[in-house]
Amino acid sequence: MDIVCLTATPMKLAIAQLNPTIGDLAGNAQHILNAANHAASKGVRLLLTPELSICGYPPRDLLLNPSFVTSMATTLEKLAQQLPPSLAVLVGTVIPNPQAHIAGGKPLFNSIALLEQGKVQQIFHKRLLPTYDVFDENRYFEPGLHSNSFTLDLKDSKINTQNPKSKIQNLKSKIQIGVTICEDLWNDEEFWGKRNYAVNPITDLAEQGVDIIVNLSASPYSVGKQQLREAMLRHTAKRYQQPILYTNQLGGNDDLIFDGSSIAFNRAGEMIGRACAFETDLLILEFDEQTRDLLPATIAPAPENEDEEIWLALVLGVRDYTHKCGFKKVVIGLSGGIDSALVAAIATAALGAENVLGVLMPSPYSSDHSVQDALALAENLGIKTYTLPIGELMQGYDRTLESLFKDTEFGIAEENIQSRIRGNLLMAIANKFGYLLLSTGNKSEMAVGYCTLYGDMNGGLAAIADVPKTRVYSLCQWLNNRVATDGVADVADGEREAIPGNILSKPPSVDGVADLADGEREVIPGNILSKPPSAELKPGQIDQDSLPPYDVLDDILQRLIHEHQSADQIISVGHDSTVVNKVLRLVSRAEFKRRQAPPGLKITDRAFGTGWRMPIACRCF
Amino acid sequence: MDIVCLTATPMKLAIAQLNPTIGDLAGNAQHILNAANHAASKGVRLLLTPELSICGYPPRDLLLNPSFVTSMATTLEKLAQQLPPSLAVLVGTVIPNPQAHIAGGKPLFNSIALLEQGKVQQIFHKRLLPTYDVFDENRYFEPGLHSNSFTLDLKDSKINTQNPKSKIQNLKSKIQIGVTICEDLWNDEEFWGKRNYAVNPITDLAEQGVDIIVNLSASPYSVGKQQLREAMLRHTAKRYQQPILYTNQLGGNDDLIFDGSSIAFNRAGEMIGRACAFETDLLILEFDEQTRDLLPATIAPAPENEDEEIWLALVLGVRDYTHKCGFKKVVIGLSGGIDSALVAAIATAALGAENVLGVLMPSPYSSDHSVQDALALAENLGIKTYTLPIGELMQGYDRTLESLFKDTEFGIAEENIQSRIRGNLLMAIANKFGYLLLSTGNKSEMAVGYCTLYGDMNGGLAAIADVPKTRVYSLCQWLNNRVATDGVADVADGEREAIPGNILSKPPSVDGVADLADGEREVIPGNILSKPPSAELKPGQIDQDSLPPYDVLDDILQRLIHEHQSADQIISVGHDSTVVNKVLRLVSRAEFKRRQAPPGLKITDRAFGTGWRMPIACRCF
Repeated sequence: MDIVCLTATPMKLAIAQLNPTIGDLAGNAQHILNAANHAASKGVRLLLTPELSICGYPPRDLLLNPSFVTSMATTLEKLAQQLPPSLAVLVGTVIPNPQAHIAGGKPLFNSIALLEQGKVQQIFHKRLLPTYDVFDENRYFEPGLHSNSFTLDLKDSKINTQNPKSKIQNLKSKIQIGVTICEDLWNDEEFWGKRNYAVNPITDLAEQGVDIIVNLSASPYSVGKQQLREAMLRHTAKRYQQPILYTNQLGGNDDLIFDGSSIAFNRAGEMIGRACAFETDLLILEFDEQTRDLLPATIAPAPENEDEEIWLALVLGVRDYTHKCGFKKVVIGLSGGIDSALVAAIATAALGAENVLGVLMPSPYSSDHSVQDALALAENLGIKTYTLPIGELMQGYDRTLESLFKDTEFGIAEENIQSRIRGNLLMAIANKFGYLLLSTGNKSEMAVGYCTLYGDMNGGLAAIADVPKTRVYSLCQWLNNRVATDGVADVADGEREAIPGNILSKPPSVDGVADLADGEREVIPGNILSKPPSAELKPGQIDQDSLPPYDVLDDILQRLIHEHQSADQIISVGHDSTVVNKVLRLVSRAEFKRRQAPPGLKITDRAFGTGWRMPIACRCF
Repeated sequence: MDIVCLTATPMKLAIAQLNPTIGDLAGNAQHILNAANHAASKGVRLLLTPELSICGYPPRDLLLNPSFVTSMATTLEKLAQQLPPSLAVLVGTVIPNPQAHIAGGKPLFNSIALLEQGKVQQIFHKRLLPTYDVFDENRYFEPGLHSNSFTLDLKDSKINTQNPKSKIQNLKSKIQIGVTICEDLWNDEEFWGKRNYAVNPITDLAEQGVDIIVNLSASPYSVGKQQLREAMLRHTAKRYQQPILYTNQLGGNDDLIFDGSSIAFNRAGEMIGRACAFETDLLILEFDEQTRDLLPATIAPAPENEDEEIWLALVLGVRDYTHKCGFKKVVIGLSGGIDSALVAAIATAALGAENVLGVLMPSPYSSDHSVQDALALAENLGIKTYTLPIGELMQGYDRTLESLFKDTEFGIAEENIQSRIRGNLLMAIANKFGYLLLSTGNKSEMAVGYCTLYGDMNGGLAAIADVPKTRVYSLCQWLNNRVATDGVADVADGEREAIPGNILSKPPSVDGVADLADGEREVIPGNILSKPPSAELKPGQIDQDSLPPYDVLDDILQRLIHEHQSADQIISVGHDSTVVNKVLRLVSRAEFKRRQAPPGLKITDRAFGTGWRMPIACRCF
């Protein structure tokens, strides 16, 4: 008898949450191959990788080089031949549009290649192309016009081991996979209460009838975005009674941080699987052929609160930018203030204390506590420091400019000279020893231009350029509380192995300055948290001499930058009109500084950087 | 008898080639009103203004602020009421898309408003939205789906003065105007040999039957682009036997320079009118109702060669950026080299010698001729200079870094310190006196990173950042030849009144160093042109120690940057493979510097800047 009762081994699918390097086709292919071999060893039948997994997202104008696109095809073919034979793999890639010049259209598609049995078997094109914020997909891609699906033959995974010749039952074992790419999933008009695009690829697939919808994404992190993704997918899975597998990219690519957190939903809209946040992962899921649904799988814990989430994002962003740019070590100017303290803590967590150098550059205007606080911080973090007083150099500039500046008063020019001396010293150290300089400006000061171009803005990466000052405080407070509560803390205890050298693996010294400050274990010395913020570029200066209190400033900025409110709207909620108009003017006038800022890690839905495209020479406030 | 033989006064149309400031709605409306009053006084019936003339092009992310869009509508309504009653005016504006959230689509249209008789009478939407290079229109706009035209009633312009009550003939005097916006005109599949977009709005209008096609553009300058526009319009006018009026914007807006050069073609494809290049203008054209064609009008002269064209573009770009940012004066570091010499000459032409300050900052490594050459240049230009030696500051940095740098060799770090001392001094002067700092780097060195971030790259505007080094030489040579040939030269003799304070209105001194160099009148001292280029950051250094000869480098860069060629392709034409691979590696590794560069005036079809979107942390060469 050939017909037997097959043991109901559910089909296994897996999400490879990979961290590609942009443009590194061979390296990215190797990551996919490693994941594929691992998945195959676990009996996985179908492996998903992120959007454009072969080149990394976003490849940006590399796509304008035809040889780059050709290399992707070559790499893909080679990869197909290397993959384990039992496995089908969906790889994100770019495909030329042969109709571009005939029908009129962009020369490329943002696509997925189905690799199986040594070959590229099928190609699917992305249908909805995001062109807003940091996304420029209409610049490169033509939208796909058809819904995408393929049939996965399950016979290999279901072969009757008691009678290997049995094939009758197996022929029925097929499942239909609907294929979508990132934005294709983001047009549920019920969920959003509006349509973002004319078509909804999910509706098309549901009408067509598929067993599972898979999505290959590269969705950048912003605060609270994962909750939004989960709510949206819950809605969509339930609405169409369609299991959904959502694969997100992981890693930092310039200003963008991809948080992973890939997720799976069953037909009832229940989240039944989630990959790690801010780490690479391989999430294995099972599809039950009887119920035609996904079975409960591993759900990785989510960050406990927004502070932890942002912290993890910034640590990942700093680590990846540093390493992907070819650096091992970073240098940071430590002013004794809270911004540089936070950046030093992030860098230490990202790269290890041995790879972080703090440089103190006191001036005659620096308060005593600045140096003490910076040294206390460095001791808490276990990082090395150098102290380079700048008084002599200040005098040198004074003398050099003496005849030119005589009869003028001390002002912005002299303040900026100090900041630029420090910027020059930091770059000299970075250049001399091959370190990456991290700049330490926060979003509030980047917004109003309370920072010196070619001075404290110097750096290869602006680690907290998208973190408002009020959030800088809450992050530092959270960091201290976590240490106080957890001791050596959970993020370094093996659970989250992908984060090496975490700051908390080096518990703060029990006899450091920090402990004297408030008697608790802490990372950021209490005095840094409690003293009024100051640039210390003239005697007695504090930020609030020039700016409204940061809670007021940050609320105005939130309304202006994120909510696109007008001055009138902001004033109408109770803000002082003089303050509002001043802030708007400052924001507009600081555009020339932001244009020359280093990339800043994006953690909000609207960051200065690639998604912020403002004219400089304009008159708009 | 009411029927009389009307004198065939042709209908007058005019192109207002205006120079808007981005976001300055009231100011831009005033410019339109001034042009309208002037046109009305000349008997013009229809006035054309450039694309988005009410807000200036490109408004970029200002469009994301709803109150900005609302203000445009208000400004437009007010303008309509102020316009002369005899005149119809086409104004470029932005219009909300009421269907955006219902049908799915972008929230705005890039539109034209027809203003007549005190009101906005009609609205037309742009159909083809450029999303490549510096253009991001799909980011903001939904394409219009229909072809646009309106009927212009000519009775006012043709009224029988001998019998004012006569109306019979007048009722027949109507012409049909087809309306297009910029890119709508750029999809002639015959001309390009390919389709860029699926539809061709011109074909639609021709099939529909219109008398004239008008186009409101904001087409940025690049070398040779005007020839391309003229060839394309010639082809299109002839193909459809359709008179075409093409209105271009004028002026510099950040990195983009709009060259004007608005043009008109008759049905035979003959250019019968052209407005000035690089100046505001009002070009009046006549439409003959009998022949249904445009009559010959003024054809402004085109620049004589590419060097003159680029020179005029850069002068306009520097002047507009300076003034639109609210500056009057600029400061420039004069090294005695050719790049800073050219920038100083451009600035002098743009702003007047009294508004340009040259700063010499010799180091112990500077050659004697550097200071002499810089002073000779300044004398030729008639600009003031200061000399600030940097030797003492270099020693100050050496001492400050002594213990940290001991046992290391002099290298890039020390070279950059010098450049950054200069950058700091220049910014101190700029900050102290409210000057704009112009940076002086050329495209070749920006490409390979042969420049110091936070040093010589400092500035609010990079005047020649898109000018390859070989072109820097040819521009200087052209400048000298022109002076030698023309004496006080034609561009300052009243013909081109829109260019004030031209360098050539101040003839070079007959007893300056320059004249000693080669015996001719010249602007750029001969020694600056003839000596080998050097950064002079260490003894005896010349550029060619580190880089291939500039003619070789520029050819490789042209192929790489403009023609998107691969290393193999570039090598295949005869370039040395070691050199090519080195250059490609340098270009890729200098991305972090370019990201932090000031806006650079775009004069080629592919400039570093808003149209260059490359990842930094990548592995692509």
